[in-house]
Amino acid sequence: MADKKQVEAITSMEEDFAQWYTDVVKKADLIDYTSVKGCMVFKPAGYAIWELIQKQMDERFKATGVENVYLPMFIPERLLEKEKDHVEGFAPEVAWVTHGGLAPLQERMCVRPTSETLFCDFYKNEVHSYRDLPKVYNQWCSVVRWEKETRPFLRSREFLWQEGHTIHATMEEAEQRTIQMLNLYADFAEEVLAIPVIKGRKTDKEKFAGAEATYTIEALMHDGKALQSGTSHNFGDGFAKAFDIQFTDKDNTLKHPFQTSWGTTTRLIGAIIMVHGDDNGLVLPPKVAPVQAVIVPIRQQQEGVLEAAGRIKEALTGKGIRVKIDDTDKSPGWKFAEAEMRGIPVRVEIGPKDIEAGKAIIARRDTGEKTECAIDALADTAAALLDTIQHDMLERARARRDMQTYTATTKEEFEKLFAEKSGFVRAMWCGDVACENEIKEKLSVTSRCMPFEQEKISDVCVCCGRPAQKLVYWGRAY
Amino acid sequence: MADKKQVEAITSMEEDFAQWYTDVVKKADLIDYTSVKGCMVFKPAGYAIWELIQKQMDERFKATGVENVYLPMFIPERLLEKEKDHVEGFAPEVAWVTHGGLAPLQERMCVRPTSETLFCDFYKNEVHSYRDLPKVYNQWCSVVRWEKETRPFLRSREFLWQEGHTIHATMEEAEQRTIQMLNLYADFAEEVLAIPVIKGRKTDKEKFAGAEATYTIEALMHDGKALQSGTSHNFGDGFAKAFDIQFTDKDNTLKHPFQTSWGTTTRLIGAIIMVHGDDNGLVLPPKVAPVQAVIVPIRQQQEGVLEAAGRIKEALTGKGIRVKIDDTDKSPGWKFAEAEMRGIPVRVEIGPKDIEAGKAIIARRDTGEKTECAIDALADTAAALLDTIQHDMLERARARRDMQTYTATTKEEFEKLFAEKSGFVRAMWCGDVACENEIKEKLSVTSRCMPFEQEKISDVCVCCGRPAQKLVYWGRAY
Repeated sequence: MADKKQVEAITSMEEDFAQWYTDVVKKADLIDYTSVKGCMVFKPAGYAIWELIQKQMDERFKATGVENVYLPMFIPERLLEKEKDHVEGFAPEVAWVTHGGLAPLQERMCVRPTSETLFCDFYKNEVHSYRDLPKVYNQWCSVVRWEKETRPFLRSREFLWQEGHTIHATMEEAEQRTIQMLNLYADFAEEVLAIPVIKGRKTDKEKFAGAEATYTIEALMHDGKALQSGTSHNFGDGFAKAFDIQFTDKDNTLKHPFQTSWGTTTRLIGAIIMVHGDDNGLVLPPKVAPVQAVIVPIRQQQEGVLEAAGRIKEALTGKGIRVKIDDTDKSPGWKFAEAEMRGIPVRVEIGPKDIEAGKAIIARRDTGEKTECAIDALADTAAALLDTIQHDMLERARARRDMQTYTATTKEEFEKLFAEKSGFVRAMWCGDVACENEIKEKLSVTSRCMPFEQEKISDVCVCCGRPAQKLVYWGRAY
Repeated sequence: MADKKQVEAITSMEEDFAQWYTDVVKKADLIDYTSVKGCMVFKPAGYAIWELIQKQMDERFKATGVENVYLPMFIPERLLEKEKDHVEGFAPEVAWVTHGGLAPLQERMCVRPTSETLFCDFYKNEVHSYRDLPKVYNQWCSVVRWEKETRPFLRSREFLWQEGHTIHATMEEAEQRTIQMLNLYADFAEEVLAIPVIKGRKTDKEKFAGAEATYTIEALMHDGKALQSGTSHNFGDGFAKAFDIQFTDKDNTLKHPFQTSWGTTTRLIGAIIMVHGDDNGLVLPPKVAPVQAVIVPIRQQQEGVLEAAGRIKEALTGKGIRVKIDDTDKSPGWKFAEAEMRGIPVRVEIGPKDIEAGKAIIARRDTGEKTECAIDALADTAAALLDTIQHDMLERARARRDMQTYTATTKEEFEKLFAEKSGFVRAMWCGDVACENEIKEKLSVTSRCMPFEQEKISDVCVCCGRPAQKLVYWGRAY
């Protein structure tokens, strides 16, 4: 009965997706709310996912020559104001520090909402010659944006992220780095998070404040809403001009360098929840599961059971699997439900009869499938199963995303799709912001991106009927 | 000549230790100053040291059951005010956020100077039963203290650190964790940073605001000044009472739990510089050296030289050594000086003649010693040499620390030592803060700690002549 109660305590996805999300986040023990409005606590289970994301993404960064740095969390107001579009984009949503100790500050400072301005201020000191270029720096930190409405992982006043900031001698090199990092994000999303993404360019309306071009990876959640999951920006030499950064090039002339920035945040955890979760709770891709296999001993008070569980743990650990034994005094059914809620990819059940027969039960979280397995073969089986789960989760997510991706060639089709379905709608666009505005106002739908893989599915804009310029993915977004 | 110039650009330690420190910090490319007064940029070479510290310390934490979390960076004023001693200690030196976006906040918040109050607020929600205890949490983050005088790594307005916060059912368990973490810090300092430390307890005057007992590891810098390098606090149930945290114990009665906190900061990098550095720059212990071996090709434009360097790099990498080739167009002498400045533990020199003879030169940064080594044996030799260097650096630092540790049994001796020498002075103390105050005012000397290894070196207090209670390490401190 206790087991049932725990499972029943989650709202079903179908019934109320938003409430389901909140339930999972709480019941899987990922976060807690605090006395600080709009901010949250990352509890161990939530933070451990972020640590695994950090570790694996950081390795990929470093393999491309990225170096980590750390810049101050404060930005003096006059620095923030130097780049016009940028300050307009961010000033309305920053937190201002006005007092240090007991005295008012001479100049107020905001807590960084993003660090382009500080990196520019830093690069101005560092970059003088073509020999000083490129610099390919990144930092892992938290940033603050004073949002009115917040949701765990998706939008909070403080969130964790990485922000890469690079500076180059040529526009070509900057563009190359911008695209390289977008591709890195896309590969990471697919290979590590098992989340398929659409890679593309943002329209001018949706691009980052101060960027010449913004590229994005867009994922589709279970409810058919889109989530912008990583962005990469090419700034051209706009910031360099605003901050007066110059270098002497090989030809002995002074030039402005070119810059990029790129970032991903803890909202990736929100994406994991909403792409893979089900009515039993979280489903974690093995590569970011803090616990990859849980061993549940049955009749654990009987002689030999915990010992057998211990030996299995050792064998799995030997294969590099992150494993724990649940030897609490809860019932097995309760433990199963809890392990499911927390999204642990593999569960091993071992009881006295199993031990006698030299076998155990091994269960997949993603499909619920249970099979018997010889105890001696458990470690190899579990390791292979984790690979299979990682692979299958991506393929299932891709199949669902593709099913929820529609195509519209007429305005009627377009509007009908958004009235009746949730998902991406692919449709042509003339390139005029007026059409984007009209669509947004009428349907609460935004252009998610102009995908790299362009296709001409009709000759005219789905909104105004004028000649089409670009294929666009449209969607309702988080 | 260019080589000379670079070396001459550092002030010698003897001449002006403070200037030497600043020179090393800048020339070894560890930090840069910013437009944000009192804050600094951790450049790649500086941040990489911190990453190595984090990784190795975090592994040690987790081996003792620590789990990482992340709490908000803001503390509402009313939370900070709940514990009387704590607010008195910190309120004068915090940065206050008064506006969010365009509107003033209803309640101002400080940027965390430390997070005891937030952890209490969090634990109040999490801890209800003895089953919820203990919680052994830690976070890696930055904190802000509005210092008036700042020095790179040692004291800045924002610094990076880890703060552990634990909560327990009994005072004994809290005390045990407090001491366990202090021991962990001491072992880490010695085994990873090659810095010998004195472990002890702070006097009441010097303890943390709100703590019942503060324990410290104290290291001695090259100039004979002490550096508090890590602290561990037992709060008893003081914070739990102030924040009204209670749990139902096994005996079914409501009790207040007991708490600890413990922290180390980026000032550890300052300690590394000031314990190991010399007039040629930084000297890094191999375990925290981002580059452990640099290969300097001689006559690198000659055929085969860079290829040989590449093969050596591969062989060293195969042994798990972090290695790079300096194939820039600077002269070998310049490269040697630069590698020394940056503290790279091992340098390999390889030129056409060496290649012909099947050998290379291998040089130690710590002693300057150069030896010939067969190219085939380089990887094993370098790996062994790194171990030797790590070991020798600790032993040299210990010998110097011991030489700079004096003993005084009379007031005259005590004052004479501080007039003539720099270092620790061991002397007996009556336990009265009046003596501490007198010594501080007269000699600018503070009690560093009451060492765990107590000894009775005289019967009377070195200051007042009354009966002695404790052996104390005294010193001038950073």
